[in-house]
Amino acid sequence: MQRIKIGIVGYGNLGRGVELALAQCPDMELVGIFSRRPPETIQPVNNTTKVMSIEEIETMKDDINVMILCGGSASDLPEQGPQLAKWFNTIDSFDTHAKIPQYYEAMDQAAKSSRCISIISVGWDPGLFSINRMITEAILPNGGTYTFWGKGVSQGHSDAIRRVEGVKDAKQYTIPMEDAVEKVRSGSNPELTTGEKHLRDCYVVAEEGTDKARIEDEIKSMPNYFADYETRVSFITEEELKRDHSAMPHGGFVIRSGITGENNEHSNIIEFSLKLESNPEFTASVLVAYARAAFRMNQEGQSGAKSVFDVPPAYLSPKTGAELRKELL
Amino acid sequence: MQRIKIGIVGYGNLGRGVELALAQCPDMELVGIFSRRPPETIQPVNNTTKVMSIEEIETMKDDINVMILCGGSASDLPEQGPQLAKWFNTIDSFDTHAKIPQYYEAMDQAAKSSRCISIISVGWDPGLFSINRMITEAILPNGGTYTFWGKGVSQGHSDAIRRVEGVKDAKQYTIPMEDAVEKVRSGSNPELTTGEKHLRDCYVVAEEGTDKARIEDEIKSMPNYFADYETRVSFITEEELKRDHSAMPHGGFVIRSGITGENNEHSNIIEFSLKLESNPEFTASVLVAYARAAFRMNQEGQSGAKSVFDVPPAYLSPKTGAELRKELL
Repeated sequence: MQRIKIGIVGYGNLGRGVELALAQCPDMELVGIFSRRPPETIQPVNNTTKVMSIEEIETMKDDINVMILCGGSASDLPEQGPQLAKWFNTIDSFDTHAKIPQYYEAMDQAAKSSRCISIISVGWDPGLFSINRMITEAILPNGGTYTFWGKGVSQGHSDAIRRVEGVKDAKQYTIPMEDAVEKVRSGSNPELTTGEKHLRDCYVVAEEGTDKARIEDEIKSMPNYFADYETRVSFITEEELKRDHSAMPHGGFVIRSGITGENNEHSNIIEFSLKLESNPEFTASVLVAYARAAFRMNQEGQSGAKSVFDVPPAYLSPKTGAELRKELL
Repeated sequence: MQRIKIGIVGYGNLGRGVELALAQCPDMELVGIFSRRPPETIQPVNNTTKVMSIEEIETMKDDINVMILCGGSASDLPEQGPQLAKWFNTIDSFDTHAKIPQYYEAMDQAAKSSRCISIISVGWDPGLFSINRMITEAILPNGGTYTFWGKGVSQGHSDAIRRVEGVKDAKQYTIPMEDAVEKVRSGSNPELTTGEKHLRDCYVVAEEGTDKARIEDEIKSMPNYFADYETRVSFITEEELKRDHSAMPHGGFVIRSGITGENNEHSNIIEFSLKLESNPEFTASVLVAYARAAFRMNQEGQSGAKSVFDVPPAYLSPKTGAELRKELL
């Protein structure tokens, strides 16, 4: 069997997750990791994994079938994405929802010029959650869709707390509100703001001698991040933060509640949920499955930017169409 | 806007559900219902819906874009499917899992000869549950998949009870076993037979003067249907059966539990669940969304038999690619 040759760009938690996910896929092989950091400073999970400078990446054009971009959405992907799409099929997890149309256009132009394929915004949200929002709305047009996130760490909110004066370190968990979830699951189609759906639970390490009441107040009144939410602040020690809050769990659910029937008398609830012990490892596993799809779609002659909406599910699996129909349909 | 022209073949609960679902889709129009029964004996939901004899169906070749086949899998579809695929794009809910490969081949041959497209085995299982089994296995190859059905009426099991001597009428509910569900949700990947996952709850109307103990015993010892399951039998009156057990709710869930990490230390749970007040209306809503996809895929030049695994999600929605990326990605 000809294995699909994969490259990883960027080696943080996500890149490491991709290396681990590839080890579970016998139909794929990892050719190398590309980083802006000096290669000798990178310690991959597998000692034999090759690490190269991102400066050399163009020379690998003919040796890699799909490049998995593991950089951040704020500054890495908007620059690296369109550049690398000129040379490679790519997969990325671009997740700045508001900028997706603009990013799509840039990627589409680059990928069409190279006749490569770029599947953007892959992961679980955007990604699997998007597919569920989309399919369930198409099936039950008369209804409402609700996305809940958590329980899980929000990097953006943790960073926001760390910028408060006197805060040494912090972790913020987004937690779905039980009563909002129950209302939605009952099919009552309530009107809910994001703030009514989620609780923000903050664990804060304060600098010695700082006024904790002032910190708590500044956090709770921070616009956009916390002001519109029920927010809990707990002060803990640095040791406690390390011991109890180093894991990277996450999850959430998408619920579609829609009505059918001659007199709209029947309520139908579709729910898709994730409970992840490792957010980056799971996201990486999704990226790897879509890398398989990108390779096949490009082999068939497709090019340009795509999203998860454009990928037939069968392309994600190493099994043949006949196997899938027999075993899983 | 040019609306997609739909025909319905067979007018039982499912066909009626399709008529109702189409009323929620402004981009589609119902051209007519085709039945083996005399058209004047059919009472559609909407008085203005045209009802025709199935004998006339070939004459409508140029007036219908997609035919939604609402017959049963046991005898209707194996005969009607390949016949109608020679004239029309089709959607069906063929659900005899063991015979899918054979049905697929027959439909593929017919649809290729007419350059039409036939999406087979559409609904929720097979259908949405299949997609979830397939995608989640591709994403988390190291794990287990569990399908639970219920709480809902099983037509096959209800029929089996009705064949017992002295039974006047009966309804059987399939109910997931709470403790099995909890084990699976915990990520412990238990080995479970279908019997260990489901309880069979039977409501039986006995003929007057019959020995109920004998009926209960015959039901509980019936091979394949009940012998391997925890089975509950309750005797009720005909009035109670009509009053309390006429609805057609159903549902169930697919759970994938898979591990990631350097030492397989992280458990990740994906769950897709349905809670339906009307099984036939929901199934019909799925068929209608896939009819939209069939029309578009055929417009693009695709033909032959397909399953839900072959359909890019975007094709199910009336929204454009740009709208989907902006609103739902």
